[in-house]
Amino acid sequence: MKKLFQHVKDKFGVTFQDENVLIEAFTHSSYANDHRDQQIKNLERLEFLGDAVLELTVSDYLYHKYPDHPEGQLTRMRASIVRAESLAKLAKEFDLHTYVRLGKGEEQMNGRTRPSLLCDVFEAFIGAVFVDQGMDVVIDILKAILFPKIDSGAFSHGMDHKTALQELLQRNGVVTIEYSVVDKRGPDHEKEFVVEVRVEGDSFGEGVGRSKKAAEQAAAKVAMKMLEEARES
Amino acid sequence: MKKLFQHVKDKFGVTFQDENVLIEAFTHSSYANDHRDQQIKNLERLEFLGDAVLELTVSDYLYHKYPDHPEGQLTRMRASIVRAESLAKLAKEFDLHTYVRLGKGEEQMNGRTRPSLLCDVFEAFIGAVFVDQGMDVVIDILKAILFPKIDSGAFSHGMDHKTALQELLQRNGVVTIEYSVVDKRGPDHEKEFVVEVRVEGDSFGEGVGRSKKAAEQAAAKVAMKMLEEARES
Repeated sequence: MKKLFQHVKDKFGVTFQDENVLIEAFTHSSYANDHRDQQIKNLERLEFLGDAVLELTVSDYLYHKYPDHPEGQLTRMRASIVRAESLAKLAKEFDLHTYVRLGKGEEQMNGRTRPSLLCDVFEAFIGAVFVDQGMDVVIDILKAILFPKIDSGAFSHGMDHKTALQELLQRNGVVTIEYSVVDKRGPDHEKEFVVEVRVEGDSFGEGVGRSKKAAEQAAAKVAMKMLEEARES
Repeated sequence: MKKLFQHVKDKFGVTFQDENVLIEAFTHSSYANDHRDQQIKNLERLEFLGDAVLELTVSDYLYHKYPDHPEGQLTRMRASIVRAESLAKLAKEFDLHTYVRLGKGEEQMNGRTRPSLLCDVFEAFIGAVFVDQGMDVVIDILKAILFPKIDSGAFSHGMDHKTALQELLQRNGVVTIEYSVVDKRGPDHEKEFVVEVRVEGDSFGEGVGRSKKAAEQAAAKVAMKMLEEARES
């Protein structure tokens, strides 16, 4: 377990006061089951806590970062950030799964890289930091590893394209985004809509779809791609 | 609005630094809609935050209060505490709804005492305290108005009887609770089961039901009632 403490210290700058809490966060239920006679605690209680810690820290961040976003938009953003897939990615990026104590069967079934396990471990780790170090240290960690990703739009893919475009563009204040049908084509039974998206009056792209709604989504997707390419170049 | 500040001061001992935050928490969307020209903020953003604050504070309380409860039990307890019905009751107990700014239509429809509105206002109020006063003051308030209710089993009614009995009895450590079928009676097509519940070997009651499961629930209900009467006398 020496390695785990060192890893957490190196990656997150945190030295645990009670190393047992950290070990608990990295003990899968399958390992505890394999060693039932030793009454080993698994990560589930810390995961329960960590889930709520993440929910609040992310909510608080979004609340202050986007003072003009209505509640619905905040809720959608939060959902895309704290969902299992996003948290699993973080766990993998910081190599948390390598240090998990796993049962034999689970290991053989490639459980170590299962998204649900990765997500559980990330939540349990956050729970452990909260219990051992307190809220401020949790926030410091998230400021380093999660909040910048939110700012850069890394979680937008969890949203539909129109929502994602809105998030991205309205990050620094309200802008006008308009969708309008600029062409209808094809025979009645195969009608296609062409929708243009304009941002503050400037065209950001066009999309084609079998319905107005689908064409709007396609247009938003084109605009997102254009913006992403502009940012990368 | 003078009255609202005084009410919050009297009931919770809190003096808001930014009175606008408190007003926002007590402004229903229907009121903001009625005064659309004034761009009034409604309670929804604070409710979004307050919901997450409650989730964490209750999780943290349960986590430390019941160090031997597995995650599943903590999750069930938390759900019964933070659900809309429970929070609506709290809002009403502390007379929060009286101070809500409500739209005309909503007022006429008796919206002021609707459980969903009561719950929203309670969450928004907690969100406002968190924003204006910080987590420690939120916890102080919950220590006064919510946590004692958890300790006394006020939220057990949200659980099935067997779970509720377990929560109540295992509050101070693990005890053995056993259910056993002591009689089967009636003809085949109307069979009834009689189940006895024993706690640390002592009989706490019997229940009858058309299935073993139903009879166990009935027995747990009898035991709960017995314990509640014992506590009241």
